[in-house]
Amino acid sequence: MDSLIPEKVAQAVGILREKHIDAWLTFVRETSAGSDPVLPLIFGQPLTWQSALIITRSGDTFAIVGSFETELARSTGAYTTVIPYDQSIRSSLLHTLERIYPNKIAINYSRSDPHADGLTYGMYQLLIDYFADTPWEQRLISAEGIIASLRGRKTPSEIERIRRAIRTTEEIYARTIEAIEPGMTEKEIGAFMHSQLEECGVEAAWKKTQCPIVNAGPDSPAGHGPPTDIRLEPGHLLHIDFGVLQDSYCSDIQRLIYFRRPGETTAPEPLQRGFDVLVQAVQAAVNAMRPGVTGLEVDAAAREVITSAGYPEFAHATGHQLGRTVHDGAGILGPEWERYGETVHLPLEPGQVFTVEPSLPVPGFGHLGIEEDVLVTEDGVEFLSTPQTGLILR
Amino acid sequence: MDSLIPEKVAQAVGILREKHIDAWLTFVRETSAGSDPVLPLIFGQPLTWQSALIITRSGDTFAIVGSFETELARSTGAYTTVIPYDQSIRSSLLHTLERIYPNKIAINYSRSDPHADGLTYGMYQLLIDYFADTPWEQRLISAEGIIASLRGRKTPSEIERIRRAIRTTEEIYARTIEAIEPGMTEKEIGAFMHSQLEECGVEAAWKKTQCPIVNAGPDSPAGHGPPTDIRLEPGHLLHIDFGVLQDSYCSDIQRLIYFRRPGETTAPEPLQRGFDVLVQAVQAAVNAMRPGVTGLEVDAAAREVITSAGYPEFAHATGHQLGRTVHDGAGILGPEWERYGETVHLPLEPGQVFTVEPSLPVPGFGHLGIEEDVLVTEDGVEFLSTPQTGLILR
Repeated sequence: MDSLIPEKVAQAVGILREKHIDAWLTFVRETSAGSDPVLPLIFGQPLTWQSALIITRSGDTFAIVGSFETELARSTGAYTTVIPYDQSIRSSLLHTLERIYPNKIAINYSRSDPHADGLTYGMYQLLIDYFADTPWEQRLISAEGIIASLRGRKTPSEIERIRRAIRTTEEIYARTIEAIEPGMTEKEIGAFMHSQLEECGVEAAWKKTQCPIVNAGPDSPAGHGPPTDIRLEPGHLLHIDFGVLQDSYCSDIQRLIYFRRPGETTAPEPLQRGFDVLVQAVQAAVNAMRPGVTGLEVDAAAREVITSAGYPEFAHATGHQLGRTVHDGAGILGPEWERYGETVHLPLEPGQVFTVEPSLPVPGFGHLGIEEDVLVTEDGVEFLSTPQTGLILR
Repeated sequence: MDSLIPEKVAQAVGILREKHIDAWLTFVRETSAGSDPVLPLIFGQPLTWQSALIITRSGDTFAIVGSFETELARSTGAYTTVIPYDQSIRSSLLHTLERIYPNKIAINYSRSDPHADGLTYGMYQLLIDYFADTPWEQRLISAEGIIASLRGRKTPSEIERIRRAIRTTEEIYARTIEAIEPGMTEKEIGAFMHSQLEECGVEAAWKKTQCPIVNAGPDSPAGHGPPTDIRLEPGHLLHIDFGVLQDSYCSDIQRLIYFRRPGETTAPEPLQRGFDVLVQAVQAAVNAMRPGVTGLEVDAAAREVITSAGYPEFAHATGHQLGRTVHDGAGILGPEWERYGETVHLPLEPGQVFTVEPSLPVPGFGHLGIEEDVLVTEDGVEFLSTPQTGLILR
């Protein structure tokens, strides 16, 4: 069993106290089909039948599960009371809530944060059915604040796992940059990195067919997609976006490498200029980051560097959180666009890990992006990745 | 790209016609965090930003996706129109619905079927926000009927994949039964089967720590849980529940093996009797299965064999569907218990694949279960697994 589970459940109790919420209910079923994203943090196992995990401010924690999963729930070591049922969860759930008699019950829905939005609409309807003729329906609130803090504030053991994932990623990048030769296709470069994943005994941080993303030269389609048959040539900029999943935690790093034409000693001027602006944008974001600042402010600092240098504004956020998943939800370093909802207004908290990844296009070379991973500390940030400050020349 | 995606999307168009529904909307975001279970059938790739997949009765199919995922959506080969957006999906979504002007819009929620319940409550709220001052909110209906048919009715290429997964599983069972010796622990037996997964280049059909489930003797805890340090001894019944995931499709098979004590030639009488009743229960279920019959009727037939032989009623369903996931949603062969909702009343349809897995306890030997995989045909069922009709003796 994963020792992080009791650690995170205990952390959740503290967060409930801090936020003055009596109870937090996670209500799931058949999680192998589609799971609540919070489950890996507070349970770490799949659940088959309708199951209620209730964490309370008093420190009592309840797992109401199908009877065949009683042992599984006990084995997490995180629930003080495990209540098995056979035919219907209704009476055990109502009975347990009677016992707690919470003033507010936080449940997992959020317009803005996918990681706090694990309750499906059908399960919500079931809950409302169960709560007919009880006070509970009126006491339901969103758990988005709880989940944002719980996911975001990494414990020391979580940070250590992220550091290890980043070290492995940097090692794979080093081997890859050494192994790549002009003439290789994007697919071949991707395959080499996959062989390194296997050698290091780790997995890709996101869907393997798109991890790494490899863009060789200006004709490679930017964005999320699998490597193509485009062949790397002298005069090409190579852009790679890659991360690993190691011990359940992720890294996410982008690097830029220029392949010189015969006779070239340095990169062409427009490319070098674009790269330098990117590095400044990363630094501007990092300089702006500290607890209490919003993601919107950090994003604006990086975005401003790009646009005031005459490049078009990038069509994505400056950064996202990193943890058990590569897009780890809650606060985002992003602009006020509808698709980011409220997540750009959340203040940074110590223990959060963010990517910083501005980008800009340079005509004739493609879309340039570098991406670093940083930890929010008590008074600023610490780079977890070794930042790319020079264009790698080959 | 998976060639099954265009095949299933085309099948969905036919199902919309059959059910007289104009449009089916799948609305997702950040699916690497928690995905809609229908996505692997109709898209086959992760999606990051708010994305709308709209399949219509006319055969027009729309993918409205974040602009960085335009190519990804095109590469599925399943959407006639791909509409990229940057800041907000709202206007593209409303514009597309204006164009279709559907009488009804099916969306993915269901009280009963987890596989048709992929829309989260936060995403539902967003949709209702977007639909303010439009006719669409009033036209929303559940897509559970569409999804039940789409997942359930396997195409010939899907059935072929399931057959291959079952062949691999039976091969692994054969090697395992030969390799097991008294003295091995449940964990060691599990590890042997894991090595076979690797050798066959397939994955476990469900969470690997619980696949296989291994129960050696009467003291092993029944239900879903990882193998323990309990050691297999002569006189023990060994129960294994195991399946593989091969080419994205699953198998799920349980087998029973008795390890004789020195001098024993046959299994003890109470054990043999329990096993024979189980085989009869499987056969009773299979005899009851044909298109149009409900899962409730099939479950009752199997359950009746068990209880009329004097054994207690098993605390689970007789069977579930099998496909891309091991619990493949929709119709279940089960009793009228609240936790199964309406899923036991759905009539069987040709092309569905079900497990048949009654169980019963025999004091002194543990919980007995066998599990077969069967295909619903035009007039009955076909065994896809080779049914266990004799207790395996070692």
